[in-house]
Amino acid sequence: MSTADKIVNAHTSTRTAADACVVGVDYGTLSGRALVVRVADGAELGSAVHEYRNGSIERTLPATGAALPPDWALQDPDDYRDVLRRAVPAALAAAGVTPAQIVGIGVDFTACTVLPTLADGTPLCELTEYRDRPHAYVKLWKHHAAQPQADRINELAHARGESWIGRYGGRISSEWEYAKGLQLLEEDPELYHRAERWIEATDWITWQLTGVETRNACTAGYKGILQDGARPGDDYLSALNPDFVDFTAKLEHPVSPLGARAGGLTKEAAGWTGLPEGVAVSVGNVDAHVTAPAVKATGPGRMVAIMGTSTCHVVNGPGGGAPADVAGMCGVVDGGIVAGLWGYEAGQSGVGDIFAWFVRGFASPELHAEAAERGLSLHELLTGQAAAQPPGAHGLVALDWHSGNRSVLVDHHLSGAVLGLTLATEPHEVYRALLESTAFGTRVIVEALEAGGVGITEFVAAGGLTRNSFLMQLYADVLRRPVSLAGSAQAPALGAAIHAAVAAGAYPDVPAAAGAMGSLVPEAFLPDPARAAVYDLLFAEYLTLHDHFGRGGNDVLHRLREIKAGTRR
Amino acid sequence: MSTADKIVNAHTSTRTAADACVVGVDYGTLSGRALVVRVADGAELGSAVHEYRNGSIERTLPATGAALPPDWALQDPDDYRDVLRRAVPAALAAAGVTPAQIVGIGVDFTACTVLPTLADGTPLCELTEYRDRPHAYVKLWKHHAAQPQADRINELAHARGESWIGRYGGRISSEWEYAKGLQLLEEDPELYHRAERWIEATDWITWQLTGVETRNACTAGYKGILQDGARPGDDYLSALNPDFVDFTAKLEHPVSPLGARAGGLTKEAAGWTGLPEGVAVSVGNVDAHVTAPAVKATGPGRMVAIMGTSTCHVVNGPGGGAPADVAGMCGVVDGGIVAGLWGYEAGQSGVGDIFAWFVRGFASPELHAEAAERGLSLHELLTGQAAAQPPGAHGLVALDWHSGNRSVLVDHHLSGAVLGLTLATEPHEVYRALLESTAFGTRVIVEALEAGGVGITEFVAAGGLTRNSFLMQLYADVLRRPVSLAGSAQAPALGAAIHAAVAAGAYPDVPAAAGAMGSLVPEAFLPDPARAAVYDLLFAEYLTLHDHFGRGGNDVLHRLREIKAGTRR
Repeated sequence: MSTADKIVNAHTSTRTAADACVVGVDYGTLSGRALVVRVADGAELGSAVHEYRNGSIERTLPATGAALPPDWALQDPDDYRDVLRRAVPAALAAAGVTPAQIVGIGVDFTACTVLPTLADGTPLCELTEYRDRPHAYVKLWKHHAAQPQADRINELAHARGESWIGRYGGRISSEWEYAKGLQLLEEDPELYHRAERWIEATDWITWQLTGVETRNACTAGYKGILQDGARPGDDYLSALNPDFVDFTAKLEHPVSPLGARAGGLTKEAAGWTGLPEGVAVSVGNVDAHVTAPAVKATGPGRMVAIMGTSTCHVVNGPGGGAPADVAGMCGVVDGGIVAGLWGYEAGQSGVGDIFAWFVRGFASPELHAEAAERGLSLHELLTGQAAAQPPGAHGLVALDWHSGNRSVLVDHHLSGAVLGLTLATEPHEVYRALLESTAFGTRVIVEALEAGGVGITEFVAAGGLTRNSFLMQLYADVLRRPVSLAGSAQAPALGAAIHAAVAAGAYPDVPAAAGAMGSLVPEAFLPDPARAAVYDLLFAEYLTLHDHFGRGGNDVLHRLREIKAGTRR
Repeated sequence: MSTADKIVNAHTSTRTAADACVVGVDYGTLSGRALVVRVADGAELGSAVHEYRNGSIERTLPATGAALPPDWALQDPDDYRDVLRRAVPAALAAAGVTPAQIVGIGVDFTACTVLPTLADGTPLCELTEYRDRPHAYVKLWKHHAAQPQADRINELAHARGESWIGRYGGRISSEWEYAKGLQLLEEDPELYHRAERWIEATDWITWQLTGVETRNACTAGYKGILQDGARPGDDYLSALNPDFVDFTAKLEHPVSPLGARAGGLTKEAAGWTGLPEGVAVSVGNVDAHVTAPAVKATGPGRMVAIMGTSTCHVVNGPGGGAPADVAGMCGVVDGGIVAGLWGYEAGQSGVGDIFAWFVRGFASPELHAEAAERGLSLHELLTGQAAAQPPGAHGLVALDWHSGNRSVLVDHHLSGAVLGLTLATEPHEVYRALLESTAFGTRVIVEALEAGGVGITEFVAAGGLTRNSFLMQLYADVLRRPVSLAGSAQAPALGAAIHAAVAAGAYPDVPAAAGAMGSLVPEAFLPDPARAAVYDLLFAEYLTLHDHFGRGGNDVLHRLREIKAGTRR
């Protein structure tokens, strides 16, 4: 076992060791985690983490040492197999369960993380002749070098009035399948033409597990522009680039609903994992979306926010018919979170990284010293100082657009602001205003969904920022809604395990499995009416500024960016 | 000689030691400086500083140890006499001139710094029975405890449509004679009634030098609401408080033009100073305004900015008739800077103290370490980093209202802002945006004066911030005007000496004396057209925000203050 492997969370169990279990595998940016979960009640019996040998490949290609251009981020797909080889057996050992107890396995993945393969699933980068070609490798979600292609995709879609563009807030991301695929074509056409498949890593690793190619409804919809059963048409593609017209063929495949059985574990994959050959493998999934069943959010009304450096919001709306008309979502996909319901995804491009930016650049030596003396992180220290004041006492309001606005305004050329500064303004007050601004940003998204007919009754927080109780209470007060917490610290892996249980036939569908296996700390934070009343006042100010600077009242933020760009020319 | 006394600036001279000289005494907030200046050419031959024994009395009354309320700031007038006793002889010694060479002496002072006295000039605090009464002492300019009185003064003036209020930007400061006098009446009526005079310290110390009571045109106009030969009427005063109707009698006295001879040095004052009895003493003056002749700014068009924690702008407009209609000045006074011309005063309430606020609270340990290693102040380090970027490269614009807006908007309930922040924004970029915001604030004042008919052809900077060459160049570029520098590091004392020379009859008037004795580094910084063009773009953004947030487009800054105040109740 590699030294990078870690065994964590060996739970004790009140049931017998013979209970049926499933394995959820969560593929993150730098590592993969395997979690062994009991089918009957979702108890997490053991887990293990394997760090990718090649991590995120951003500077040089390991095979050659050649430098990569800026904004590139690749991965080596064999690192994903290594997670199966190492983390899965280690998790079983940690859980103290025998392979015979395992009835299924499922994965979730970062997305859009996508690779070119042959028709048999062989990654192009595993062909000897292409080991030295950067475009042969997996393009990780954070590969941001396809922005010129994304810009053209969006301009052309609006120019042609493509109906699907509205389902994505009017904007296809440079991270997604079409932009990255067009970059491949235009920068390495030989590889583009050699690629018989352009496939999400979540579907590819599932293919590796089963020997059967599948495509899941989540990535097909959110990342692959599959809407109402169709993808962008040939006219559109050839207008982008005449040679791009065959791109659909590289994506096209029957789409499986989430929770479906992709196939049975192959003999080879059984060898990697130590699991019995033939156990059920569920279709692939995405880390954010799979968190919804992990916190029992399988019906309409319960929004899940995965809060870290950025925040991803997913919520189900009613199924059938057309989706609600909600402006500025990242994506609206039929069955994108739970089969049979419209799945809405929204996001805030900067949350934890705004707090980190402030702490990194603007914390004085006195704060550093006090934090060190008290054994606190700067975030903990500033949060504690901020919490000592009542809401509104800082006299500040901020805009949380330091890396743009991903949802509702869908404008990545916006930037942040702080108003109300005086000579008495202290650092923890600015820090608190930044915390608040992200809560206000979430409230704008919640209210946009509600205005479009997607009710939000409860807010479930998951991710690293949930450790900050003051922040969680702030969100409850600002949203005037209970904030529940994910019960599991590894909710995505639990969500993948839930899908595996459904694929294994242990439950009739994902909602039933989530009801039994999902884990939630319900209403961990309740809104306080007095604080909420003050936050309403501040939110009103935020909203006025949001609309003024975000909807054309004053385009100063765009012009500042243009002035800045002008200095570089 | 006290250990606090310092002898500085002993210049060498190319003239003979027998040249006629004058002494200028500059009374600051914490110390007084005496400067010996040659009449013929303004050469500064020597100076000395005496620090006030009691400094600014803000916490406890020295005579009793009793605590003072918040916002109080008193002084002991005998500290002013000590400057005559100590700094003047020391400056003579440093200059190497004999008393017989001195033909005159003049003072300038902080203002409004004001005290209650008997009809013979005895300060009430020097009467044994009043040593324990805080209201018997000098109220220093920064005594801010008369805000409730100032509020009533302003409300009533507007309600009654008093004509004089427009000469003060619609607002009488809590620092000025009427607010402080009304506070005296309402908090210690016995002392109010005992006070036969309510006199600026600059006039009081001149009285001490000469034995003759005088009042100068500058403080009478800017601080004492003397306009067109009249003060606020009895109806107005009695509406404020029936007992305040006799306040005018405590101020009223023939007003002397600046540069006039107040009298001859008394035998007692000759004893204090070591100067010959009977030498000319000029009428009192104010530190900011007296800087104008020190930099030869005695005619229309040359604006002088005294730049420190805040900035005071003084400029002469054409004389005669009515003053130009310029909204939002601190004061417009006939002969307030130079006899015969309308004197315009404007100000920015926060300049250097905004930069200091940022450096104090928001500079990281890395910056502190780098500054220490390179032997720089944080200001120098951040300025250097900022200067390495071209204008506009930070993508930021800030509002310099951290302590409100003193001129044009005349609104002390505004607050500051920074817009355009991104996760890549670095501290020196915010610092530069703050520097720029103060230059933009100055440009708004300059353009308001020009729009009102007061041309501004040149900008002369004095004060501590002139040491920052990057800042000076920035002002030249933003203002699109040459920036000249005061030639003297002790320009106010030089200005006082110039007035003394006029009072002594060495020159026919202040402009003639200033022409010979004033000191200027002309056009030390010239605007660069390319940078100015970028700053024009940023200034346009500043101005849009200035008007939006300062003129009612969005009163968020006021509402934030109200929300903040609400949390204290």
